Amino acid sequence: MTPVRILFCLALFIWRGSADDTGMENIVTEKNAEESHRRDSADLLIFILLLTLTILTIWLFKHRRFRFLHETGLAMIYGLLVGVILRYAIHVPRDINNVTLSCQVNASPATLLVNVSGRFYEYALKGEISASEVQEVRDNEMLRKVTFDPEIFFNILLPPIIFHAGYSLKRRHFFRNIGSILAFAFVGTLISCFVIGLLMYGFVTLIARVGQLGGDFYFTDCLFFGAIVSATDPVTVLAIFTELQVDSDLYAMLFGESVLNDAVAVVLSSSIVAYQPAAASSHSYDGMAVLKSFGVFLGVFSGSFALGVSTGILTAFVTKFTKLRDFQLLETALFFLMSWSTFLLAEACGFTGVVAVLFGGITQAHYTYNNLSPESKTRTKQLFELLNFLAENFIFSYMGLTLFTFQNHMFNPLFIIGAFLAVFLGRAANIYPLSFLLNLGRRNRIRNNFQHMMMFAGLRGAMTFALSIRDTANYARQMMFSTTLLIVFFTVWVCGGGTTPMLSVLHIRVGVDSDKDSVNALEFTERRSTKQESAWLFRHWYSFDSNYLKPLLTHSGPPLTATLPSWCGGLARCLTSPHAYENEGRLKEDDSDVVPQDGLVYSDGAAGSATMLHPCPASGPIEAADSKLATLGTQLVLPVEHSEAPRDLLRHREDMYRGHNGNTVDGTLAPQYHH
Amino acid sequence: MTPVRILFCLALFIWRGSADDTGMENIVTEKNAEESHRRDSADLLIFILLLTLTILTIWLFKHRRFRFLHETGLAMIYGLLVGVILRYAIHVPRDINNVTLSCQVNASPATLLVNVSGRFYEYALKGEISASEVQEVRDNEMLRKVTFDPEIFFNILLPPIIFHAGYSLKRRHFFRNIGSILAFAFVGTLISCFVIGLLMYGFVTLIARVGQLGGDFYFTDCLFFGAIVSATDPVTVLAIFTELQVDSDLYAMLFGESVLNDAVAVVLSSSIVAYQPAAASSHSYDGMAVLKSFGVFLGVFSGSFALGVSTGILTAFVTKFTKLRDFQLLETALFFLMSWSTFLLAEACGFTGVVAVLFGGITQAHYTYNNLSPESKTRTKQLFELLNFLAENFIFSYMGLTLFTFQNHMFNPLFIIGAFLAVFLGRAANIYPLSFLLNLGRRNRIRNNFQHMMMFAGLRGAMTFALSIRDTANYARQMMFSTTLLIVFFTVWVCGGGTTPMLSVLHIRVGVDSDKDSVNALEFTERRSTKQESAWLFRHWYSFDSNYLKPLLTHSGPPLTATLPSWCGGLARCLTSPHAYENEGRLKEDDSDVVPQDGLVYSDGAAGSATMLHPCPASGPIEAADSKLATLGTQLVLPVEHSEAPRDLLRHREDMYRGHNGNTVDGTLAPQYHH
Repeated sequence: MTPVRILFCLALFIWRGSADDTGMENIVTEKNAEESHRRDSADLLIFILLLTLTILTIWLFKHRRFRFLHETGLAMIYGLLVGVILRYAIHVPRDINNVTLSCQVNASPATLLVNVSGRFYEYALKGEISASEVQEVRDNEMLRKVTFDPEIFFNILLPPIIFHAGYSLKRRHFFRNIGSILAFAFVGTLISCFVIGLLMYGFVTLIARVGQLGGDFYFTDCLFFGAIVSATDPVTVLAIFTELQVDSDLYAMLFGESVLNDAVAVVLSSSIVAYQPAAASSHSYDGMAVLKSFGVFLGVFSGSFALGVSTGILTAFVTKFTKLRDFQLLETALFFLMSWSTFLLAEACGFTGVVAVLFGGITQAHYTYNNLSPESKTRTKQLFELLNFLAENFIFSYMGLTLFTFQNHMFNPLFIIGAFLAVFLGRAANIYPLSFLLNLGRRNRIRNNFQHMMMFAGLRGAMTFALSIRDTANYARQMMFSTTLLIVFFTVWVCGGGTTPMLSVLHIRVGVDSDKDSVNALEFTERRSTKQESAWLFRHWYSFDSNYLKPLLTHSGPPLTATLPSWCGGLARCLTSPHAYENEGRLKEDDSDVVPQDGLVYSDGAAGSATMLHPCPASGPIEAADSKLATLGTQLVLPVEHSEAPRDLLRHREDMYRGHNGNTVDGTLAPQYHH
Repeated sequence: MTPVRILFCLALFIWRGSADDTGMENIVTEKNAEESHRRDSADLLIFILLLTLTILTIWLFKHRRFRFLHETGLAMIYGLLVGVILRYAIHVPRDINNVTLSCQVNASPATLLVNVSGRFYEYALKGEISASEVQEVRDNEMLRKVTFDPEIFFNILLPPIIFHAGYSLKRRHFFRNIGSILAFAFVGTLISCFVIGLLMYGFVTLIARVGQLGGDFYFTDCLFFGAIVSATDPVTVLAIFTELQVDSDLYAMLFGESVLNDAVAVVLSSSIVAYQPAAASSHSYDGMAVLKSFGVFLGVFSGSFALGVSTGILTAFVTKFTKLRDFQLLETALFFLMSWSTFLLAEACGFTGVVAVLFGGITQAHYTYNNLSPESKTRTKQLFELLNFLAENFIFSYMGLTLFTFQNHMFNPLFIIGAFLAVFLGRAANIYPLSFLLNLGRRNRIRNNFQHMMMFAGLRGAMTFALSIRDTANYARQMMFSTTLLIVFFTVWVCGGGTTPMLSVLHIRVGVDSDKDSVNALEFTERRSTKQESAWLFRHWYSFDSNYLKPLLTHSGPPLTATLPSWCGGLARCLTSPHAYENEGRLKEDDSDVVPQDGLVYSDGAAGSATMLHPCPASGPIEAADSKLATLGTQLVLPVEHSEAPRDLLRHREDMYRGHNGNTVDGTLAPQYHH
């Protein structure tokens, strides 16, 4: 790195008043720092109150079974309300002085030392401010403060959400549809990105012609918009699917797609930003630069994937070969730390932490989870479920808030209309062609109504918001941010709220038992049917995984001493767990919803799992489902003579309507009453 | 606030190199920020690795029943090792340029805007740097970075630790010894502070006479040192007490004292810092200023206490009057948020968050806990247990690390010797006189060997460290910090490691059943014996609490409609829970260790609790205890014929040696073997 040659140019604007005129700068520093700290605490407190309100209202909704507004949509509404109050009802007058000095400088260092009468004060670079912001900032300190550094989303809030998505993946259905999911996530996102990008470019050109464009908006900006807005987040829809037990293939495809396309969108947007053509005009077409961007995409994605999987494997080894399972606190703490280290390691190496954390979560769920003691399984699930809940609702509250507190909104009606159109068409271009192509190869066709549902369920959420707020320095980005906010609002409230009616309109069956296989089938049958349904690639992966990876990383059989060639004998003996000789069969796939449900604690055996779902007849559309569901599931309900039964019965009913992030499927009794 | 008059004086030192000479400042900003981010991730990763190593080693120790090094002492050792490596084995060369401009300025604002060729960059004030640090910083960027902002301790790490201490308080024994605990915590800490302060002042005068004192060290500094070093943190000792089941009054007094004297020390140190005499010489005696400091102490302490208790009460109300208990995720999230808001509210109002959080925790444990569903009780306990574990080990690792990474150590041998002596004498002056005075009033004398044990168990830890690192700007504070580190190391390793031998030397009985009452006694007997043992104040509090507060805030009886006068009838009917009519008796005090133990899940009834301890004979000194413990507790062990028995038996044995932060008492089988 070349040293910085500096002749300094400084124009200094001071607007945070107050110095004690006695000249005790030490106290002034502490006072300013303390004031700043108090204000930060007050800001956080506002969010805590928002979240608390949201929780209480969610409870009320669940209590009354109001299914049209999910907790995320609710959090946004509360955020909006508080935003309005902050913007229009609170005024914080300030005294401001400013003095300008001018010189010449080449670059802004990350840290600055300022000598104030012999004392040195350290200043850290927070970021760039647009010229307009400088003017406005004096008027409303309060609003500025309630704005968080966007990196908080990627460093603190998104990782738990993404990890939880990976960790709570329903693996059997995920892998059963792996081909389609990968297609939608990768190819579909790319298609969506380019379609939206092209359409937006057309619109922007049109807008410029009409003279309504206030600044530059290049093709790369359009592509960037396409990338960030292609990240779907159908939290609401999945929660409703869970409650109503919609077909699990549809669920798996939607969930899998959303989880992976978040990862793709992050890396894609970074690659697009990294596009730097050699030519002086920074947005001309340069083939080499395109290739380089593509290389960045591949490199970052694979690197993050590799890191995530490696840390997961390492954790699996550690939990397999130590007896940590005797000490649940230690086990849980270790699991948490190693999952967090996935994120940090990826970030420290310059890759993308959220992508690493996603694949880390999937790996942990697939291998490490089986090595944990039953209590730790519960503890880790609950821990990440809580973190996910808090982080997600925080983000959605913040979304509502920024509609009013963000200082640099650019609402351009033509752009907004164009964006909505482009997003709609982009989703269509993603779903329908790919479904057609996939149906040529799938044994189990993606039906038309499923395709329509997937089209409808393309909600945008946390990832899109975080990606758009990351950089709002120039006109284009500000316009994108404002428009993205509106898109998120619309899709979450309208599409999310309309999910239940849409399920009826499309005649999609609810109350479908997703695990009929696992209850009835013998292991062999299960293996056979899974294999039959799968593509060639999956079959081979499944064999490899069952015969080598699982015995290596978990306590499952068959033992490596049997499957590996004899020259590996010594190594195989080292690596084979004693349990593996007992578990000649495989670990039962315990992803079939043995997540501890609210209020129901499942007892897990040491190495296997108990499937808790029970067969129930595939029922008709939703109106019929509710009455039919009443006859389901006698396995989990205690006999009515038991004095506790009413409470459990009530709780089981409540379970049906518990809308998590759609990551658990309730197989419990339906409520006897439904309005 | 007076506006700032500014004629600016800036000397700017730039040492973080690298600008792209193509002049694209935007990219430079992003690069610098990214680099900074990568480095922060790498720093955190170092700590995660430290913690992971610590966890694995703890497991190894527990596996082998090594009781002489607790996890905190171990974390410190690992911190030391990594500190050595960072200091002596890693070199990070840097190119540095600097340019100085000089002008005149009055104060350092909290935020700075710098104009770099037309773009504005925002810099936030991080803090003051001593002149010496400026020079050194260039040589070792890496070390500087691994140093965290001390406020992290008070804002992120200490709150969970302190909250957990309050939340897991064993209330019955705590309240039974409340008088002694308050005496030791308040009066004792003040005594200790002043004794140490005076002794240190003597030493410092001596050192100055000998010409060994390199800077100013006033009496207020000595008092400040006395305050911060009076905060005890006997984590190790309490863990060992738990494992060996030492007398619960001793445990309660030690634990209660440590928890409260942390709070006292924080506020006391702030009050001493707030001492600003009117006279020009900033350290002369000024009676008014002393009174004002005392006023600050009272005000901050009571304010924090009030806020903590209020939030606890609010949470109790919310959990009592909503049916949130049906939704454990919501309940847990709400509980977590409201506990966190205690901290933020106190900080935003200018009080002390950790103190508020302590009393909030106690209030939550006393009232709110009873309103939670059984699963939420478990979840919240486990959540805070995990946070406490991670935060505490992080702080202790960091302690070890700072011995080598801190740039401004001042090791003064005479001062260090003086400090050790003063601390020893201060502890003695705290324990012995107060014990004597308390024994005049206590029904159950504090025996001599208990007093010696309390003297010995005065370990220093997280709070002392955090208070001393908070401000290391001048010579006196740096010397105090370095000395405090050594005191913490010594007490944790030597006194902590020597606890087990000391128990033998002092002939303190182990294997004492602390809850013999609760198992055998009827409610009336329990109430009677508790009352008999208590002082007048406690009896009145107990009645008030049982008859009014608990029925108001929880579902316990007797119903308010019965206890309140008739003109409150309507209000009483509103506030009385339906359950209260059923629970004419009181809620069983469920503080008697119904914390879910590692590996043992207790089933809680809806409103009561199951005491899990079992009577065992009070046994002799520790050598005899181990063999006797083998005959204890048949209630929790499954019959040996059961195929799972060996595993549970092993787990029960391990429970005995599970050293938590001393917040749970194991009442389980002892190991059959002990070396």
